Amino acid sequence: MEQQALFAEMSLFNWNLYIKRTDDLLNTLTDEQLAGEISPGRNTGVYLTGHLFTYHDAMCDILELGERKYASLDNAFLKNPDKSGINFPSIATLREYWTETNNRLQKYFANMQTAEWFSKHKNISAEDFAKEPRRNKLSILINRTHHLSYHYGQLILLKSK
Amino acid sequence: MEQQALFAEMSLFNWNLYIKRTDDLLNTLTDEQLAGEISPGRNTGVYLTGHLFTYHDAMCDILELGERKYASLDNAFLKNPDKSGINFPSIATLREYWTETNNRLQKYFANMQTAEWFSKHKNISAEDFAKEPRRNKLSILINRTHHLSYHYGQLILLKSK
Repeated sequence: MEQQALFAEMSLFNWNLYIKRTDDLLNTLTDEQLAGEISPGRNTGVYLTGHLFTYHDAMCDILELGERKYASLDNAFLKNPDKSGINFPSIATLREYWTETNNRLQKYFANMQTAEWFSKHKNISAEDFAKEPRRNKLSILINRTHHLSYHYGQLILLKSK
Repeated sequence: MEQQALFAEMSLFNWNLYIKRTDDLLNTLTDEQLAGEISPGRNTGVYLTGHLFTYHDAMCDILELGERKYASLDNAFLKNPDKSGINFPSIATLREYWTETNNRLQKYFANMQTAEWFSKHKNISAEDFAKEPRRNKLSILINRTHHLSYHYGQLILLKSK
């Protein structure tokens, strides 16, 4: 259990690191910068912000933490690409949802027992999990941290040169 | 030890995943695409390729695996930004070094004992490591995987739209 706690701590350390980096970046970007594209013809910062918090919000479901709050935005930010014609909430609202999602997950994570991180997540059967114990709840957190660092590497291109 | 083996497996899974994704991407990009910038005025794919394999090559040192091969390129790809005026090897050479570094690390990792991943890395003192056992060799691998996914998110912008 001590080793499990260490590994959960290592994984949460990296999650918090990239959430903080992305949060700091979003706070330095103006609404105009966020509305811009990361590279000509590519995703906007607005889309990526929505994409990140809806994807993180969905962790509530897969990690069995509680009800999701922004499933109604999946269509805009998860199921469709940017510039699909679907209306987005205002940038101020997206910033608020980003922060609310981070804070909500942080509270859930603080209350999770170590053993829970090593239990199966919602989208894997007990049979498959017995064969592949690697596919635990912690693997979802780790996967989402890589997804976050991937998009953080793009959002940083919105900064002034 | 069984739990430690699981963590090492989870971390190596993600390292291999992003190495494979980046390798597949580099193999689909032409030399002309790789010479381009990820966004106007930003890093070129050539620089990022060099940056990644020299950073990975340096893991040989910090993880105490063996001699580095490309320390002579640190000046071009780690210590200075892109367009510093320092000459780069040819793109064909950079592609070769990228592949060689991946293969070399893969062999080292395959031979590492689980306990070794949880031992201290070269750049932390025994005293500090006793206080922060999170800062083990596995944390270096995890950190480098995030660094890789960050830049993979940028390199993918070189693909044709």
